[in-house]
Amino acid sequence: MKEKRFVYSFEEGDGKNKMLLGGKGANLCEMTQIGLPVPPGFVITTEACLASLKRRNDLDPVLIDEIKFHMDELEKKTGKGFGDPKRPLLISVRSGSAVSMPGMMDTILNLGLNEDTVTGLIKQTGNKRFVYDAYRRLIQLFGAVCLGLDDKPFDSIFGEIKSQCKVKLDNELNGEALKQISERFLLLIKDKTGKPFPHDPFEQLKIAVEAVIISWMGKRAVDYRREFHITTDMANGTAVNICTMVFGNIDDNSATGVAFTRNPATGENRLYGEYLINAQGEDVVAGIRTPRPIGELRKDMLDVYRKLDELRHTLENHYREVQDIEFTIEKGELYSLQTRNAKMNATALIKTSIDMVNEEIISEEEAILRAQPEQLAQLLHPQLDPGKLAEPLTKGLGASPGAASGKIIFDADKAESQGKLGEKIILVREETKPEDIHGFFASQGILTSRGGKTSHAAVVARSMGKPCVSGCEALIINQSLRKAVISNVTLKEGDIITIDGNTGYIYQGKLPTIEPEFVEDLLILLEWADDISTLKVMANADSSESATMAKKYGARGIGLCRTERMFNQPDRLPIVQEMILADTPAERKKILDKLLPFQKEDFKDILKIMDGMPVTIRLLDPPIHEFLPREEELLGEISHLKKFQQTVDGMKELPATLEIFDPKLYSKYAAGLEALTRDVDKFEMKHSITPLISSREETLKKVRNLTEVNPMLGHRGVRLGITYPEIYSMQIRAILEAAAEHIKDGGKIVPEIMVPQVCTLQELKFVHRYVTKIHQEVEKEFKLKVPLKFGTMIEVVRACMRAGRLAELAEFFSFGTNDLTQSTFSFSREDAETKFLPLYEKSGILQHNPFEVLDIKGMGRLMMFTIEWARKTRPDMEIGVCGEHAGHPDAIRFCHHIGISYISCSPPRVPIARLAAAHATIKETE
Amino acid sequence: MKEKRFVYSFEEGDGKNKMLLGGKGANLCEMTQIGLPVPPGFVITTEACLASLKRRNDLDPVLIDEIKFHMDELEKKTGKGFGDPKRPLLISVRSGSAVSMPGMMDTILNLGLNEDTVTGLIKQTGNKRFVYDAYRRLIQLFGAVCLGLDDKPFDSIFGEIKSQCKVKLDNELNGEALKQISERFLLLIKDKTGKPFPHDPFEQLKIAVEAVIISWMGKRAVDYRREFHITTDMANGTAVNICTMVFGNIDDNSATGVAFTRNPATGENRLYGEYLINAQGEDVVAGIRTPRPIGELRKDMLDVYRKLDELRHTLENHYREVQDIEFTIEKGELYSLQTRNAKMNATALIKTSIDMVNEEIISEEEAILRAQPEQLAQLLHPQLDPGKLAEPLTKGLGASPGAASGKIIFDADKAESQGKLGEKIILVREETKPEDIHGFFASQGILTSRGGKTSHAAVVARSMGKPCVSGCEALIINQSLRKAVISNVTLKEGDIITIDGNTGYIYQGKLPTIEPEFVEDLLILLEWADDISTLKVMANADSSESATMAKKYGARGIGLCRTERMFNQPDRLPIVQEMILADTPAERKKILDKLLPFQKEDFKDILKIMDGMPVTIRLLDPPIHEFLPREEELLGEISHLKKFQQTVDGMKELPATLEIFDPKLYSKYAAGLEALTRDVDKFEMKHSITPLISSREETLKKVRNLTEVNPMLGHRGVRLGITYPEIYSMQIRAILEAAAEHIKDGGKIVPEIMVPQVCTLQELKFVHRYVTKIHQEVEKEFKLKVPLKFGTMIEVVRACMRAGRLAELAEFFSFGTNDLTQSTFSFSREDAETKFLPLYEKSGILQHNPFEVLDIKGMGRLMMFTIEWARKTRPDMEIGVCGEHAGHPDAIRFCHHIGISYISCSPPRVPIARLAAAHATIKETE
Repeated sequence: MKEKRFVYSFEEGDGKNKMLLGGKGANLCEMTQIGLPVPPGFVITTEACLASLKRRNDLDPVLIDEIKFHMDELEKKTGKGFGDPKRPLLISVRSGSAVSMPGMMDTILNLGLNEDTVTGLIKQTGNKRFVYDAYRRLIQLFGAVCLGLDDKPFDSIFGEIKSQCKVKLDNELNGEALKQISERFLLLIKDKTGKPFPHDPFEQLKIAVEAVIISWMGKRAVDYRREFHITTDMANGTAVNICTMVFGNIDDNSATGVAFTRNPATGENRLYGEYLINAQGEDVVAGIRTPRPIGELRKDMLDVYRKLDELRHTLENHYREVQDIEFTIEKGELYSLQTRNAKMNATALIKTSIDMVNEEIISEEEAILRAQPEQLAQLLHPQLDPGKLAEPLTKGLGASPGAASGKIIFDADKAESQGKLGEKIILVREETKPEDIHGFFASQGILTSRGGKTSHAAVVARSMGKPCVSGCEALIINQSLRKAVISNVTLKEGDIITIDGNTGYIYQGKLPTIEPEFVEDLLILLEWADDISTLKVMANADSSESATMAKKYGARGIGLCRTERMFNQPDRLPIVQEMILADTPAERKKILDKLLPFQKEDFKDILKIMDGMPVTIRLLDPPIHEFLPREEELLGEISHLKKFQQTVDGMKELPATLEIFDPKLYSKYAAGLEALTRDVDKFEMKHSITPLISSREETLKKVRNLTEVNPMLGHRGVRLGITYPEIYSMQIRAILEAAAEHIKDGGKIVPEIMVPQVCTLQELKFVHRYVTKIHQEVEKEFKLKVPLKFGTMIEVVRACMRAGRLAELAEFFSFGTNDLTQSTFSFSREDAETKFLPLYEKSGILQHNPFEVLDIKGMGRLMMFTIEWARKTRPDMEIGVCGEHAGHPDAIRFCHHIGISYISCSPPRVPIARLAAAHATIKETE
Repeated sequence: MKEKRFVYSFEEGDGKNKMLLGGKGANLCEMTQIGLPVPPGFVITTEACLASLKRRNDLDPVLIDEIKFHMDELEKKTGKGFGDPKRPLLISVRSGSAVSMPGMMDTILNLGLNEDTVTGLIKQTGNKRFVYDAYRRLIQLFGAVCLGLDDKPFDSIFGEIKSQCKVKLDNELNGEALKQISERFLLLIKDKTGKPFPHDPFEQLKIAVEAVIISWMGKRAVDYRREFHITTDMANGTAVNICTMVFGNIDDNSATGVAFTRNPATGENRLYGEYLINAQGEDVVAGIRTPRPIGELRKDMLDVYRKLDELRHTLENHYREVQDIEFTIEKGELYSLQTRNAKMNATALIKTSIDMVNEEIISEEEAILRAQPEQLAQLLHPQLDPGKLAEPLTKGLGASPGAASGKIIFDADKAESQGKLGEKIILVREETKPEDIHGFFASQGILTSRGGKTSHAAVVARSMGKPCVSGCEALIINQSLRKAVISNVTLKEGDIITIDGNTGYIYQGKLPTIEPEFVEDLLILLEWADDISTLKVMANADSSESATMAKKYGARGIGLCRTERMFNQPDRLPIVQEMILADTPAERKKILDKLLPFQKEDFKDILKIMDGMPVTIRLLDPPIHEFLPREEELLGEISHLKKFQQTVDGMKELPATLEIFDPKLYSKYAAGLEALTRDVDKFEMKHSITPLISSREETLKKVRNLTEVNPMLGHRGVRLGITYPEIYSMQIRAILEAAAEHIKDGGKIVPEIMVPQVCTLQELKFVHRYVTKIHQEVEKEFKLKVPLKFGTMIEVVRACMRAGRLAELAEFFSFGTNDLTQSTFSFSREDAETKFLPLYEKSGILQHNPFEVLDIKGMGRLMMFTIEWARKTRPDMEIGVCGEHAGHPDAIRFCHHIGISYISCSPPRVPIARLAAAHATIKETE
């Protein structure tokens, strides 16, 4: 061979050199060389392509010589002759550059057929239909791709013959009809180009190779490279792959099929797949005949089956991955042109990972990298069976993953009572409020017509791991008629729907779901992941239920324990409201004393569950008016009450009791009040409801006073802690007493107190003074040391800008990326997601919704500045991330990169995050 | 003299060496040496103090020798003898460290008096009262300060004698009474200390000096130094000043007085002041006798007057500042112990600055530095006469400077009609809305009960330069009764009040004000300032009125022309509302075409006024729902209408016309609707109002749809420009057509288009595409080149973090520090200023309200990061600041320091900013 080669046989080519051989060519060489029965063939290099393009699309004579040489070799290997009517050699020609690229010429099959070889092949195979089918395909493809003819006249000839034969499907045409088609096609070519279809196979080959090479500079290919910034460093010229044709449809000793080296659904370590005798690939796709499971091949063709089974190990050892091969059996001979990494479901992926590590095929690191973190969601939540989807009614926001079906119920109380009867329930509300929480517990899923992915419904559902679709604007609820309308379909309470919290789709009726399995194998994989990760994964949890879930999912502690939801429990909310509406600090303090034991118990339960691990408790964060009834609600109530009183006033003669309107009981009956006014004579009136009306009016006044223009930027977090220090004092005491009691009971714990919404060191100092004082008091009272860490949320931009100073007092930081995203972008999530973010994403102004995907370019830069200064002050500082983004793999990778110590996410995302953290470490080291 | 000296006479001491001689001592030396007739004396150094403290408070013998030496010198200079009964020398002893510091011993007067010298002095002066008055003062002061005795027993003896003599005032006591007091005091001292009051004057002096020195380490002084971080670098030890006593109350050839080297009220260049014959300083203060103007001294004591007048030049040439001296004349001899820089009002300050530059006493730079920028406010707005204040009714927020009096008017329409009659008006509202704007024009000042310093009322008032007090929570308005109550005082419409927009105080009735004078001198000074400044001062203006004001006040262009207020004009608001409520972009576009000519005229007027200067126009910024009626308003209207219809329905037999309820006219009559329903029979009913009701209900629905949870972070600015590109297109076209027409008319202008709320380069690109397209169209249409600059507001944190990328497309930046403060702190201004900022300031958590004082530590750091990256991309980039802070001297100094190119503030603050900008340059160079 000469110094510079333009052509390599599959046995010779360097399987790693995609730049020279193109992706497809290199793969064919690699497959051949590891022993896969690839039909013989060779690759024309990209250099040959460039050289020919330089010669104004004229093939280099040296190249032509080399092609001839390799065609000779091919004839020797196959024992067939190119253009030999007796044993005709047929070949395919395919393009293939280093980067997969649409817009270039793709494939021409069956080159080598002409009048002579067609006749010979019919003789040889006795299968006229097969041969003319191949021939007519060649002519059309050649015409279209090499000669630039339009497909339409070919298609209309084909259609004409089909209607003459009165058949519907292509494969119903017999050999004679296909022969007619071939002849008409040949005439068409001559007619359109003035030249006959080339009879000489080598002429066919030369034209095809030229066409492939020229297509590299075709408009579509050039545009594509420009659009996707494919430079000549990445791909320069296309290779041309020449390969012997093999046919699974020659006779009954031929077949075609697919095989997986392991079961892609279960991971089971045995050959899996299916095949069809005397068929080609498209027959499998067309679905006219039912393929047979691969096991039966053992009976049909034992040798071929054995060969396939042996190949399994060769392939897996080489590719270090489960493979999916397409194979063809031609007259009892096995061939394969393609192998690729198998697509598996999560269960199979995990099982094969563990197995392949045990079989020493891959390392633990490779096993970890095989699984994409997001895939684990399949193992953690029920999923709709993808094979059995129906037409959705509409689409909302997929706000908490998983799918669920159940009866529509329109209020939390009824959900609770029905749930107790064992009903499956979807709680359907315009939006949810903290007092609906018991309805969440009772439901399988939550659907709301308003609110985004951080709405109350979404956040609570995620923390419970229940599916939720929020912001479903097409859903119109008529609460009083107990009906809802979605896209003209009316749904009554009790009707069954299915929601998909991954996609946001809503379906009528019950759709089959696939239940999650938190398999043993996953536990093993995640343990390996933990061993590798430097970034710790903690969980957000604020109840014993969620703490238990966090532990089960392998969280290394609680990174964010919110305290506000504890305030929202039905037994506490009235006390909290009373506290907020108190007129003096002293009065407020008295009411807070009533809340203290509740809070302490909350904390004790959680500390007990997390014994020995860190638990970071955030002091009260949201604006206090969130705990109060809404203005409209109160207005409605007052108007109802007044109406009622009018009715009552008109029936003075009736003895009546309105005991039922005791303020505390009232809220329970507010919904039914209208009915009551109709049945008033059933009640005895002992009391007037005037005091109740004035009390509600008083509340209304206070609620109005507390209303804020921009509540997200309002009177909340540490600002509340400073204006009402008695609230934080109560919480600090509850945390420390809970810890002290836990320690007294023999437990081990380091509670961490975290201050929200901090923007200046002075705020931290203010709270720290209370912490120090109460800490001393509690230690004295309990006569023991209570370890304690004090830190701050970093969720206000100014805190980022003052990080080094805050770190003087704060022992740890925790980025609250939800709020930080909000203030970095000046986007209010609720407003943005309904008003303009969809358009922003659609028009590419933002690539992602920054509330879902951490904005590395902008907010990430802010975080880096923050960490840099903070660690200058306190080099070993623990810095976490506890916002919504924390559970997402890309964010985790970035967090790892910038030196975040831990992330904290909702318990169901913990496994995903653990895997992602390991990925981040491995990829960083690479 | 020895090598190390402990004592310096006033003639010897180095007037610059405050560390050694203390502030007071150094001043006395300086005054003596420049020729001021300071009574002879000497200074004991701080080193002497430290040396004595080291000796456990024992005076160094060397020091005692030196004191004796200098006392001898003093006797020689004065011709008097210390303890000499014939011509007794009396002295004072004062402390004085390098830093003025309360907590140290202050002053002892009249040392040298004892039984013998008292007798001698009476003989010499013939004034028993004078001598015993001096003596009793010495004894009490000595007792209190040197011997540590309580003042109380002294005071009760004094009181006792006064009541025996039946006098009320101290100076009504005669010589005999004062003698009695002196004797009782002497007994008291002996009684309390066991020792008699020292007879020996030198003993008196020694004890006094010791007392001063010891006081340096007294608890109060030490605490003070710790509290205010006064280190030994700043002050180490106290000096002791010994000075000959002089008396203005010895005889009728003696006097006491104050003199200014120029008139501190007018700046006139002649001696100004007043004096009292035979009196001492406290007599002037007591106000029992009326001092005489200094001019009369020419008649009384010509020589002394001449001497004083000569001193003027000496003093001003030396101190380069107008001086205020206290003087005493003892027996025809002029003395002065003190001179200091005179306090002047703004007019005098400016006049003297210009004069002193012309007289070559000071440089232009010194003239600029003499005036504090904020002082100029006095020259720009009417001020309450500080001498004639009344008790305020209450206090709101001083939201726009200046004072105004007028009749209370509760709505804008009435303000307008009354204003046309020439009434002075204070518009009093709960809060104002854009449609109240005509009321602002008609009023002298604005008072609101709600809203902070960026409320609509505050912002508009500032831009018009009218006084405004906002957020006056004690003000309770009853709109329908046309009454308001402030702190139990009921005010009817038409009652007169006065508001002070500097302090926020509200007064009943009319208070006298001082009118502003924008004097010629100020113009000169500001021109000098402009020559020096590197930071340019522009104005925020969005009407021809404000542009005219901006030009008058010397703005170098318009840095921020908001376009939203143009939308709020009464003739446009209905069109704007129609546009917003349009259902399709096409419909919206059609309505916008109606707005285009209005906008174009607005811009043309402004460009014409600012001809040749830059005009930066910001595209629409606020959330669109701000242009719509509020939900409550609509609800009220609908309920009124329905009520009305019910009434009407009940009177079917009546012919009635409701033409008046044409939707467009309706709003004008809404207020009187309740009355109308009573008088319904006066109208013929031709139409039903049902369509009106449904139209209002439709509007209500849309308004509710547009309502946002956090409007400051919502659908506004460029987000609107992207979702409704037709709005920005209209504005861009209006700007460019206005510019083209202006250029066609022979004008010169570079309009600058500025995009608000930008957070990513893609947003800018989106708007820029429209700008480019419309720019080309307009140039083609007008057949001329229209110069144009394109830039962005920097008011979103993410824009700061992406500055370098934004600078690729933006030709200029303008920091919007209002919004940036909001997102840096996560404080919503309106919520913060009412809910927690007052407490934050009071408790020192924040030193200032960051919406008023630019937060250098946090937001400033963010601005520095921004500028750094922006100028890397575009080194010569113009970067401005156009937020509220821009007009404030501290902010201007910071802006200058970090390389801001220009600031833009409301027109009335332009002069202040120009001066501040010059200060910043001068101080930076220093």
